[in-house]
Amino acid sequence: MDIEIITIGDELLIGQTVDTNSVYLAKILAPLGFQISRKTAIRDQADAIKNALSESLTRVNMVLITGGLGPTNDDITQSVLQEYFNCGVRTDETVLNHLKEIFKNRDPRIFELNKKQALLPDACITLFNSQGTAPGMLFEHNHQWIAAMPGVPGEVRAIMEESFIPYIRPKFNLGLTQHRTLTTLMVPESVISHKLQHFESNLKGASLAYLPSYNAVKLRLTQTHHSLTQADFNGYWEQLKVQLGDWLFDDAERELNEWLVYQLKQRNYRIATAESCTGGFIGNQIVRVSGASDVFPGGIIAYDNRIKTELLHVNAQNIMTYGAVSAEVAEEMVTGVCERFQTEVGIATTGIAGPNGGTLEKPVGTIFIGIKVNEHINVTSHVLRGSRHDFMIRAFNTSMKLLKEML
Amino acid sequence: MDIEIITIGDELLIGQTVDTNSVYLAKILAPLGFQISRKTAIRDQADAIKNALSESLTRVNMVLITGGLGPTNDDITQSVLQEYFNCGVRTDETVLNHLKEIFKNRDPRIFELNKKQALLPDACITLFNSQGTAPGMLFEHNHQWIAAMPGVPGEVRAIMEESFIPYIRPKFNLGLTQHRTLTTLMVPESVISHKLQHFESNLKGASLAYLPSYNAVKLRLTQTHHSLTQADFNGYWEQLKVQLGDWLFDDAERELNEWLVYQLKQRNYRIATAESCTGGFIGNQIVRVSGASDVFPGGIIAYDNRIKTELLHVNAQNIMTYGAVSAEVAEEMVTGVCERFQTEVGIATTGIAGPNGGTLEKPVGTIFIGIKVNEHINVTSHVLRGSRHDFMIRAFNTSMKLLKEML
Repeated sequence: MDIEIITIGDELLIGQTVDTNSVYLAKILAPLGFQISRKTAIRDQADAIKNALSESLTRVNMVLITGGLGPTNDDITQSVLQEYFNCGVRTDETVLNHLKEIFKNRDPRIFELNKKQALLPDACITLFNSQGTAPGMLFEHNHQWIAAMPGVPGEVRAIMEESFIPYIRPKFNLGLTQHRTLTTLMVPESVISHKLQHFESNLKGASLAYLPSYNAVKLRLTQTHHSLTQADFNGYWEQLKVQLGDWLFDDAERELNEWLVYQLKQRNYRIATAESCTGGFIGNQIVRVSGASDVFPGGIIAYDNRIKTELLHVNAQNIMTYGAVSAEVAEEMVTGVCERFQTEVGIATTGIAGPNGGTLEKPVGTIFIGIKVNEHINVTSHVLRGSRHDFMIRAFNTSMKLLKEML
Repeated sequence: MDIEIITIGDELLIGQTVDTNSVYLAKILAPLGFQISRKTAIRDQADAIKNALSESLTRVNMVLITGGLGPTNDDITQSVLQEYFNCGVRTDETVLNHLKEIFKNRDPRIFELNKKQALLPDACITLFNSQGTAPGMLFEHNHQWIAAMPGVPGEVRAIMEESFIPYIRPKFNLGLTQHRTLTTLMVPESVISHKLQHFESNLKGASLAYLPSYNAVKLRLTQTHHSLTQADFNGYWEQLKVQLGDWLFDDAERELNEWLVYQLKQRNYRIATAESCTGGFIGNQIVRVSGASDVFPGGIIAYDNRIKTELLHVNAQNIMTYGAVSAEVAEEMVTGVCERFQTEVGIATTGIAGPNGGTLEKPVGTIFIGIKVNEHINVTSHVLRGSRHDFMIRAFNTSMKLLKEML
């Protein structure tokens, strides 16, 4: 079933907030058989909200609205919906008690400022928000469903998982649309596409999408017609993997950092990081995976040369002779960090993230990556494109590719 | 002038890509007097693209389209626009030469797969893409402007800054809409809103927006009517800051990590990080700022207790007695890292990021933050809400607040 998302708030249009809610909503709703067919971001203006909602309801029967619910003057979603559905207000006692609980140890005036959030349109079902003060609302109107939630990511998650989904799931019995996604690394999209031309043109009841992101391309196989059998879908999936051969990096639905932690756990290996130019990015990718402590004792952010020599035992003479951005230094960094942290696996980076510091010989984007797995060390150099942020992501992706070849 | 953005691609709807382009476009276009009034994300289907474009053109006279331009079969934006504007194709020699240059050292078959990207609609102006293979396109039609670009962030930036803006700027002479934004930390939105009630109700020709993000709330003052003088706008801005008093964290348009690097440079201080539960996040926030190397020699990701004792000289007995997540350990970590890295300033974190590992006494989200500035050390404990990712952002924000109080 197609649904639409409307996000409300100037901050989404003025470039001060990246909308991560929609990504979450898409992921959590897909397995229930809901596909997001359109997302619209609008200003927090009453007319814009009403028009967008009316338009969406001509195309689909379920609309999720995020943002514009809260205690401040620019939070107008609730009053707009009240007007739209032409209804009065009621006090929700559960919400009122929840607000009392949240503010019980604080100045009572703060509770007074917030208690109006327990006043809800009488035409809606309350979507309880355990993580915040503004509840969500669910309207059923002319066999159409409209839900509104505050825009804070943690609160969206709580409302969806604790209130919306448990309530809505039994009411819809939707045929599943299957998706499966795999990851390729460091192969250009055009090259993959050429290789898969024949495969793609023979797909019946399924389609393939290319999702390029930095130097990774994810390929998503989607069932597009319900007549496709499970066996046929699986057949396509296997064919796709055979076609890709060595280009296939991972065929599980997970991010590269999850792949890494999984692979290390499987082998009972631990990893340490020695990062100069990526400054903690790789270590932080590992720590983002719950359970990372089993495989990651830690790492060193060795931005300064003195730290490279003192903590990682890089030979100061090598820094003088070859420069801090060199294969020799990357090799000594990875050796040093594995020794320090007593790990089987290590990753070291040294490079020029830019925008300044490049030379003719070593332009901005140059990076030496050292990888160590047991006794084997592999040091390679790369030139990665993009901003400082892009550089770090590409460096992490590249190091995963290099590490996989050594495992 | 209001403009709209249309982003094309299933990946934006299926939850596999966060749309960062819109944020960039909003930021770069605001100073030219363009405001984004709506963003629409749609599937890469011809009808969806045509309908969204038609709808946008009933509301505004400029539409920017991103995504769906590239060498693969799911890249249909160009053919849809050709049909929409009912035009033929031409070969752009500049683009063709650029493609030759990109692929000159690679298998010639890769060039063959890509050279069709030099075929462009004959009704458009080419928006040259120095960072990639797919050029952008700009159509002028019935006094309306429609630009299309590929979706890769680095390519959007290159096309906007090197082609679109230089071309479009002289054609529009737009009155500026002023925005100014300041940052508050660790004060609830409802409390700020209450305090500013009177200030807000007296605003004429200007408005105030609340942009909450984790435990930070940004406040944006916007000129809403062109009759407001610069002096009045400045007057409102100064009043706002007086009202906020101590709650004001920073009145410059910058992120917290930029604030940090600036403050340290001003004082000729250097900083080192010792991170357990935040695993490199804080160090990486610093490294993301260009020029960070002047103030940041590096840090230690001390996830494992052995690393805490060996590299940071935390007393093993203290870990036994008080636990790794304790004020005593945070204090020793920050002392140890400042000594190691010979810095005036240090930040140390130890806590429980979750989702597991919490106890009754120290629930998930507990963190001890140690801050050292010269001889002063301050250790505080906090309980931070949200996912592992939220936890790290809140920990960084909180430590900036604590650090500011000590500077």
